[in-house]
Amino acid sequence: MQKPIIYHIPVCPFCQRTEILLNLKGHPDAVEFRVVDITRPRDPVLLQKTRGTTALPVMETEDGGILKESLVILDYLDETIAGGRQRRSDPFEHAIEQMLIAKEGPFTTAGYMLVMNQDRDARQSHQDKLLKLFLEINDFLMEHSPRSDFLFSNFGLAEAVFTPIFMRFWFLEFYEGFDLPAGPGFDRVRRWRQACLAHPAAQQTSREEVVKLYYDYALGAGNGALLPGREKSSFVLEPHWKTRPYPPAEKYGHPASDRALGLL
Amino acid sequence: MQKPIIYHIPVCPFCQRTEILLNLKGHPDAVEFRVVDITRPRDPVLLQKTRGTTALPVMETEDGGILKESLVILDYLDETIAGGRQRRSDPFEHAIEQMLIAKEGPFTTAGYMLVMNQDRDARQSHQDKLLKLFLEINDFLMEHSPRSDFLFSNFGLAEAVFTPIFMRFWFLEFYEGFDLPAGPGFDRVRRWRQACLAHPAAQQTSREEVVKLYYDYALGAGNGALLPGREKSSFVLEPHWKTRPYPPAEKYGHPASDRALGLL
Repeated sequence: MQKPIIYHIPVCPFCQRTEILLNLKGHPDAVEFRVVDITRPRDPVLLQKTRGTTALPVMETEDGGILKESLVILDYLDETIAGGRQRRSDPFEHAIEQMLIAKEGPFTTAGYMLVMNQDRDARQSHQDKLLKLFLEINDFLMEHSPRSDFLFSNFGLAEAVFTPIFMRFWFLEFYEGFDLPAGPGFDRVRRWRQACLAHPAAQQTSREEVVKLYYDYALGAGNGALLPGREKSSFVLEPHWKTRPYPPAEKYGHPASDRALGLL
Repeated sequence: MQKPIIYHIPVCPFCQRTEILLNLKGHPDAVEFRVVDITRPRDPVLLQKTRGTTALPVMETEDGGILKESLVILDYLDETIAGGRQRRSDPFEHAIEQMLIAKEGPFTTAGYMLVMNQDRDARQSHQDKLLKLFLEINDFLMEHSPRSDFLFSNFGLAEAVFTPIFMRFWFLEFYEGFDLPAGPGFDRVRRWRQACLAHPAAQQTSREEVVKLYYDYALGAGNGALLPGREKSSFVLEPHWKTRPYPPAEKYGHPASDRALGLL
């Protein structure tokens, strides 16, 4: 029987959410994942299915129906794949997890703005914005879940949404020297992040992969776009990231060449 | 028995969604609505319940639980109030309505940016952004529902989300002379909007109320903020908007006084 298909980029955080969810359900193979190379022109067949949009993930159901938006796909998989609902079954608890999930958009944007920022003078202001959002999450967790590691007793839907973002923010540690300040003000969100990062259902990527693939983001070029003087994006599938050296951590210095990045 | 409470502003589009949903369920009185005057300092008791945030609506459950974010509250009411689920029960159809609902944030932002814009030279660019989003919705409806008036056969969850925004955009007609261009490119979204605006479950406000209350928005002051030289916001509850004259439609001209607006 034909399985549903998810077109994805292995290192894409929004795609990783769906893999985590399937792991939580104990059915990692319920969906066929097809890799899309975003550094090449998009396959016209796929482009026709998505009616011209290129954002990933895209899901194709067994009947050929097309779904976009990772949170929509996540909800659909949660409803349709065996293994038990991962959303909280109690309506109030579900509303709590949805309120936390609603904070993810601005949080992700703030982190990506910081990694892509090219203006040294703007670093502090980007960092301040991101820290303010970390504080909001800290406050939210203190209100609704002061004692547990997770929002509820287990790694659930909110964790499936945020964990891939926490993992991408490894690029902030490497390229911006950014991390949560010490001190109790961030303790709750730090504990949450730590528990999320360590969870066995969420090990689809690694700090090394994120740091190497997102080098071009750190220089301001997102989504497989090419930087001046370069012939290959850091998002290419070949050569494999494991064979490449670590990029320079100094993003505001001299940009590295294809050769220095091990892309040739 | 204590009912759930929603703290709201009668003319707020995000609050109106919850009223529409209760009407669709045939239980408009299942929730007690308490009016908040956003032109006055917030009641400290409510401020403590919301832990300092001022955005509305806020819902207080029978047990004193606090929920924020209109889409979260909408989903919670849909799950907990009698009268049948308003979301589509089929998971794929629900995913379709969620994809459309996901377009509402940028759409609302674009319309509010246009009404609040004070720079004549920027009007066209704001209009273009909004029209692009109308076209996206048109395309989405053509893909998923070319023949019906609504996204599915009936006014449902997506309509409860968008209708209040279509109604607020009456301020764009009045203050910006903005409307959908003639021609078939916008026909599908025009038909959807028309059916939404006419639906009996969604008649909580009127063009006159929106135009009068949002005058200060058209001059760049949102959320009950006071404009220079003014003592009263156009969002005050007294004098009632019905007793006030229509504001001047020329928002880029000489600003109207409290007296001219009938606020004294």
